[in-house]
Amino acid sequence: MKQINSIKDMQKLIAEEKRAGKVIGFVPTMGYLHDGHLSLIERAKKESDVIVVSIFVNPLQFGPNEDFDRYPRDLERDEKLALKAGADVLFFPDTKEMYPKESVVTVSVNKRVDALCGESRVGHFDGVATVLTKLFHIVSPDYAYFGLKDAQQVAVIEGLVEDFNFPINVIGCETKREVDGLAMSSRNVYLNDRERQEAVHLNASLIKAEKWLLEGDSGETEQKMIKYLEEHTSGVVDYCKILSYPELLPPTPQSKRLIIAVAVKFSNARLIDNVILDNILCRPESEEETCSVR
Amino acid sequence: MKQINSIKDMQKLIAEEKRAGKVIGFVPTMGYLHDGHLSLIERAKKESDVIVVSIFVNPLQFGPNEDFDRYPRDLERDEKLALKAGADVLFFPDTKEMYPKESVVTVSVNKRVDALCGESRVGHFDGVATVLTKLFHIVSPDYAYFGLKDAQQVAVIEGLVEDFNFPINVIGCETKREVDGLAMSSRNVYLNDRERQEAVHLNASLIKAEKWLLEGDSGETEQKMIKYLEEHTSGVVDYCKILSYPELLPPTPQSKRLIIAVAVKFSNARLIDNVILDNILCRPESEEETCSVR
Repeated sequence: MKQINSIKDMQKLIAEEKRAGKVIGFVPTMGYLHDGHLSLIERAKKESDVIVVSIFVNPLQFGPNEDFDRYPRDLERDEKLALKAGADVLFFPDTKEMYPKESVVTVSVNKRVDALCGESRVGHFDGVATVLTKLFHIVSPDYAYFGLKDAQQVAVIEGLVEDFNFPINVIGCETKREVDGLAMSSRNVYLNDRERQEAVHLNASLIKAEKWLLEGDSGETEQKMIKYLEEHTSGVVDYCKILSYPELLPPTPQSKRLIIAVAVKFSNARLIDNVILDNILCRPESEEETCSVR
Repeated sequence: MKQINSIKDMQKLIAEEKRAGKVIGFVPTMGYLHDGHLSLIERAKKESDVIVVSIFVNPLQFGPNEDFDRYPRDLERDEKLALKAGADVLFFPDTKEMYPKESVVTVSVNKRVDALCGESRVGHFDGVATVLTKLFHIVSPDYAYFGLKDAQQVAVIEGLVEDFNFPINVIGCETKREVDGLAMSSRNVYLNDRERQEAVHLNASLIKAEKWLLEGDSGETEQKMIKYLEEHTSGVVDYCKILSYPELLPPTPQSKRLIIAVAVKFSNARLIDNVILDNILCRPESEEETCSVR
């Protein structure tokens, strides 16, 4: 596995691989790799010849009161895990390499950010879209892989790639879970023992919500989720929302996909989870003016 | 010369050319080609194997009271001129092809836009940077060519390419002029006969300003330019400015390059012109705290 921390070296390597006709697969991460990341690397090997994994904790996507400084980092461990999962290149630039001076330009995300995490994390998705625009130009991937645990991020990235005509295929991959159902996340290490046990109820609330929807939601599923989470965790519920996906707007009868999404703040960690449902409620053949989900 | 109006076809062609090891040169234009554009095409042939010329009047870079609707268009004439100058591919998408729906993302230009044209044309450079980001992903050029008549645009594009790590070389090319010195521009057709004669004084004011600077500017060059233009034209002076280039900030002793830039509004046309000066005043060896140019 090649290890590169310079943008110029990375672009040079990729230019050589492309000239040799290789297909490039890219897994951008903030490091502290877990099985979710590793499953992306393994998935990438299906379509691509050269698998690039990047590790960069991007300051631009953290708010002033967020966890940039204490975000978990362990490059040595990440190197071993990425190698074992099948990465061919590990790209780990430092902040100075990625942002050598104040930026003339940034990417602004104008849709898909007024709900869910975008509502409380103002500017977060601008930071995500900006760093990915840079990374996409540094790695020039044919395929880029992202975990659907961050479903809003995937929705924004799909918009980024589509609107800017990046010649890249975005692959959203299923959320990897612990045995008890907790979505894998680098931030799970912030949980204390009690919170770790309670955290399983995020996933449980989604399973319940899906059931309530299938039974015929009368617009109360979100409230029922909040009640369930308040009863079963010590955390503060940030949101429980049912929206169209990837638009992240209130569902209509025309919505082909829905997302049920949840965020809960524990003492040191804000956890998110979601489930994406195809066509379960708002079937196009429905004659109803409004969807049964409010 | 191949003629393409679909993004998908353009990307497919470029992918083939790249696989064959070809170097791509790109001249993005809004059409109504003149000798300035043609000189860019001719210049592109020096470095590149495949020369792509795009024609797209980009609505995003026009303000609500600007000349988007009446901007001069003549595709048939442009085809002949581009072919004669040596273009290999003419790319002319329509608005629906470039902007099929409301955008999730756009590029925001945060620096180099508070002065000159950016001051009056709010959002103009966001539109320029957004469409070029799209075009760069559609054409994937190794080299991209721009006329320095639009020097602020070149400064923004250099920032765009540098900040976003586009693997593209930006080549700013010297302004082409009519015999009497008027900078070539598609908008010159808007001038009436009297204005066309007066318009020569934009270039004349720059030549005078350069002379005044060399003689030792005491901070009055901008005012003297305004006075000269008011005396010699019927237009309204929008700005006469001396700034560092490409930063477009007030000059300091550290400024290695300066721009003298002018904009004048005639009855139906707002014309711009500039001259870029290397190292003429603010030499690094200078002991002075401030530059002689204010």
